[in-house]
Amino acid sequence: MIPDSFSDIFTRKVLIDSSNRIQKVIHHTPVLTCSHFNQVCGGELHFKCENFQKIGAFKMRGASNAILKLPSEKQKLGVATHSSGNHAQAVALAAKMAGIPAYIIMPENAPQVKIDAVKEYGAKVYFCKPTLEAREASLEHVVDQTGAIFIPPYDHPDIIAGQATASMELLKEVPDLDLIIAPIGGGGLLAGAALAAYFFSEKCKVYGAEPAGADDAYRSFQNKKLEPSIGPKTMADGLLTSVGKMNFSIISKLVEDILLVEEKEIANAMKNIMERMKLMVEPSAAVPLAAVLKNNVLFKNKKTGIILSGGNIDLFRIHELLQILK
Amino acid sequence: MIPDSFSDIFTRKVLIDSSNRIQKVIHHTPVLTCSHFNQVCGGELHFKCENFQKIGAFKMRGASNAILKLPSEKQKLGVATHSSGNHAQAVALAAKMAGIPAYIIMPENAPQVKIDAVKEYGAKVYFCKPTLEAREASLEHVVDQTGAIFIPPYDHPDIIAGQATASMELLKEVPDLDLIIAPIGGGGLLAGAALAAYFFSEKCKVYGAEPAGADDAYRSFQNKKLEPSIGPKTMADGLLTSVGKMNFSIISKLVEDILLVEEKEIANAMKNIMERMKLMVEPSAAVPLAAVLKNNVLFKNKKTGIILSGGNIDLFRIHELLQILK
Repeated sequence: MIPDSFSDIFTRKVLIDSSNRIQKVIHHTPVLTCSHFNQVCGGELHFKCENFQKIGAFKMRGASNAILKLPSEKQKLGVATHSSGNHAQAVALAAKMAGIPAYIIMPENAPQVKIDAVKEYGAKVYFCKPTLEAREASLEHVVDQTGAIFIPPYDHPDIIAGQATASMELLKEVPDLDLIIAPIGGGGLLAGAALAAYFFSEKCKVYGAEPAGADDAYRSFQNKKLEPSIGPKTMADGLLTSVGKMNFSIISKLVEDILLVEEKEIANAMKNIMERMKLMVEPSAAVPLAAVLKNNVLFKNKKTGIILSGGNIDLFRIHELLQILK
Repeated sequence: MIPDSFSDIFTRKVLIDSSNRIQKVIHHTPVLTCSHFNQVCGGELHFKCENFQKIGAFKMRGASNAILKLPSEKQKLGVATHSSGNHAQAVALAAKMAGIPAYIIMPENAPQVKIDAVKEYGAKVYFCKPTLEAREASLEHVVDQTGAIFIPPYDHPDIIAGQATASMELLKEVPDLDLIIAPIGGGGLLAGAALAAYFFSEKCKVYGAEPAGADDAYRSFQNKKLEPSIGPKTMADGLLTSVGKMNFSIISKLVEDILLVEEKEIANAMKNIMERMKLMVEPSAAVPLAAVLKNNVLFKNKKTGIILSGGNIDLFRIHELLQILK
């Protein structure tokens, strides 16, 4: 059951409206299969390719939804966020497509390629020290000065509803899915998947997949209370963040279980997706397949949807990430 | 015009029959676009994703066509070839799917991953010294002993007709293409593209793209006579071989031009396809895009089909191949 306190915030209609709202600015990404993986797992795996999404990751959905939902008088003041990753690019591009300014706070040690990408979308970039405190202080300063609206990365109903549209599309294309599995970092994608399955499927259960080196969602889920990350460490850099409050409330009610995987298992799944499916994926996107291969008994003879969350990986680092397999 | 001596060998019907023959054993691969590349080139690029083909490359088409066209009394004796690359895997898998034995001669220095792949398909592998002479002698010996039929890699009408089916599918999906560009090694894929355009399009012209470090087809095309490779050197390891006789006859009559690209341009195109399209491609597959980006004036305001020929690349070597860009 959906938590009572959210029964007005998340409805079937809210999700459908979100999906309609962003149709023109996102890609309807394909769902691919791979006979090799079907054979290995003894079931049917359907990969929702959000690595083909605009900016190379599902984050474009939530950012677009949050921005397009703003009333136009607020929109024109612009939007702001702090991020060193896919959310920064998503806010920058979604703002560009809406024709409004974007102000992005990035840690001064962010990779140049990510800074360039954000600038390419026309966003104004501010640098700060690489701590959460510095990021939040800089953001507050920019918001004060510009009146821009803060677009948070995951802990917000419009973001969650936006990310839910990936699983809605997946369920539309493969309506009889038994399971969906998505990676969990902040929890926008997983909470969205859980809501999509709740509202648009009779039977589909949802699993989360998390690196053992950043297991805050797993611990929180087990202990039924929010336990933030302390010094998380994983190659799945999109999943380092702690799960959000609202995200956790949804996940703890609607998600079946959270499955942990080791670094070696992530690297192996990533290598396999690249080699067998010829798809470029970032480590975070390989976490669900790693969990499926590890917990085979859960997925055998089942029809499972896997969200390939993104494909933004530094090509020069692939061999380094795969060294763990040698 | 199609060369007189081939006007019985290659007809519209021969190509259609080939396409029908292999339908059940190959993938009908998707055609993808990328707004970034369209913008950069000022035209429309349609990528035929043969990296998603079975065994990860277009070679599955020709090998299947040649094997399935054999009369059943010949089929049951099995098939044989010598190859260290995609053709070996293609013959092995096509034979497996036809339920017949395959005998593959591989140079003893072939990468273990390729040897394993061929064995995984159930083929019997023979090793020989890494010279063309040793490969041919070993092949002759195996053919003598087993009665197996030799399936050549490119210089054969059934192989060429099989490879033509990639461009036939592309022209069916995007009928108003102005141009198709394909890489050239032995010339099966390019000759096939030229035949497909000749028989199935009113206006589509065909270009070849070749590494400057393995420019035998370019020289042969310019000088109107076959000039084999001497010590070719390129990261596009699928294009090291010299163009075949029959292939060259077709190409010299039906292909518009052959465009050369440098190693740095190949690496840059490969990096761009991986980063922007999130597709895994082997260096050979990036050669046509490199030629399009280099010869922009030819492709501006045009609708161009690009054959992404394959995606079999050693992930541990990507950073090494891209070093040239640093």
